[in-house]
Amino acid sequence: MEAALVGAIEAGGTKFVCAVGRSPGDFEAVRFPTLRPEETISHAIDFFKSKETERGEIQALGIGSFGPADVNPKSKKYGWITNTPKENWSHIDLGNPIREALSGVPMVFDTDVNAAAWGEGKWGAAQGLKNYVYITVGTGIGGGAVVNGNILHGISHPEMGHLRIPKDHSKDPFPGSCPFHGDCLEGLASGTAMRNRWNTDPATLPVEHEAWKLESGYLADALYNLTLTLAPQRFILGGGVMEQKQLFPMIRHDLNERIAGYIEIDDLDTFIVPPGLSSRSGVLGALALAQELITKH
Amino acid sequence: MEAALVGAIEAGGTKFVCAVGRSPGDFEAVRFPTLRPEETISHAIDFFKSKETERGEIQALGIGSFGPADVNPKSKKYGWITNTPKENWSHIDLGNPIREALSGVPMVFDTDVNAAAWGEGKWGAAQGLKNYVYITVGTGIGGGAVVNGNILHGISHPEMGHLRIPKDHSKDPFPGSCPFHGDCLEGLASGTAMRNRWNTDPATLPVEHEAWKLESGYLADALYNLTLTLAPQRFILGGGVMEQKQLFPMIRHDLNERIAGYIEIDDLDTFIVPPGLSSRSGVLGALALAQELITKH
Repeated sequence: MEAALVGAIEAGGTKFVCAVGRSPGDFEAVRFPTLRPEETISHAIDFFKSKETERGEIQALGIGSFGPADVNPKSKKYGWITNTPKENWSHIDLGNPIREALSGVPMVFDTDVNAAAWGEGKWGAAQGLKNYVYITVGTGIGGGAVVNGNILHGISHPEMGHLRIPKDHSKDPFPGSCPFHGDCLEGLASGTAMRNRWNTDPATLPVEHEAWKLESGYLADALYNLTLTLAPQRFILGGGVMEQKQLFPMIRHDLNERIAGYIEIDDLDTFIVPPGLSSRSGVLGALALAQELITKH
Repeated sequence: MEAALVGAIEAGGTKFVCAVGRSPGDFEAVRFPTLRPEETISHAIDFFKSKETERGEIQALGIGSFGPADVNPKSKKYGWITNTPKENWSHIDLGNPIREALSGVPMVFDTDVNAAAWGEGKWGAAQGLKNYVYITVGTGIGGGAVVNGNILHGISHPEMGHLRIPKDHSKDPFPGSCPFHGDCLEGLASGTAMRNRWNTDPATLPVEHEAWKLESGYLADALYNLTLTLAPQRFILGGGVMEQKQLFPMIRHDLNERIAGYIEIDDLDTFIVPPGLSSRSGVLGALALAQELITKH
């Protein structure tokens, strides 16, 4: 049976990626900046409508969104962005207007990182695994996890970007850039934190710059804590900062040092890897989630 | 239908609790010190055999054990203690000799804290919840989690006791007591750490002693990280140190301060609670797991 034609959105704080298709080998995507909600939602609807004219009816809609967001299907505000600090976007119904414009098709709404984790499991670097974590290190830091084959949800979605980790002020006097917590993981290790600490675009820092040593240590602290909590089979690290490929061996080394033999990791090289879908994990994850919604219905 | 008669063990590093019964209202337990493996295993078998003579055949065996342990039912070493620093107990088959002595009944083997979490969900302070965490703060610190209604297992079991958390050396010069990691959570906040830091039995420290403020902060750091990772509906805090009931309001306060409004917790008083089964969570959880094994078979 041919996979269903579905719509997918990776809704980020700076850009939206919308796609229509059936698989990683058969989809069309468009990318546009995240503007005010009404405008952005209109752009998405226009794209989907034009693709429906070409390709036929969209059967379901999958959205992986920035947050905090209401990802509980039983909630009245399922599909909403909730208390985000992002201007104009606090308490905005993102999903339902788009879904309604598409003849009320079934919708699945989750965080961008949960969608990315799901995409990597379906078609990327986590295929066949039932327990793994996807982390993006970019402007902010976020994480999504799959536990026992399902996306991890509790009372809400995880907020792994804001973990508290040890910090040695004598080695790093930077106070942290998180408006909520100062020196949480995101406050110390996001692209924004790096930019503020070193007063430059982190991508311009040379490979041997001390910035990367510090960055690797902070990320290893986070991975250490997540390892002890979730016991995942693999970490997939994506996002702009992780384009710095020198970080991968450094993080593996630093994590191993922190574990100090307490638990066994068979192969660090396959334990910490880049995404298999490069920057498409999120939108393809949303696409996979939408297709599975049809199978379940 | 009457619940099945099962055997249960809470296997701790200092004591074993063995029980035979059908429910929290109908079970008999015995407690003895953890000696060398052969001796300890013999004691357990003797107890179960004598109870079988009185009450009839035991239908299944549930064990909640100290660790690290092999809790993967598909593993050849399922039921074994693995690389524990506890003398004589490294790489010891704990479960199978007992199971075999009981006519080869079905066995479920998990960590003591996972069993305790399960017991609290069945009959204690987490009834009706699908996402929660049980933490014991005693000689060591350990945690077990239920996610989406199932005990959280990944590549192995969690080791939440060894989380890395921020530490301010100017406020707490104690280097930490964990032989693996120094100043991880267990190294800073276990009963052992408190005893070493203050050179006294922590139970003798007055309620207003600064020790409790420090302790509350470290535990709040751990709960904060677990909240952001697992998004649980509730934390159940047990173990000897948590007998100090003044800690509960302090931890609630410190956790709320750390969250800094970033996520919403409806009611801190029901978010962080003591066990509903007092010190019986572990053995009753093992009993519940054993009974469910029969239902599944």
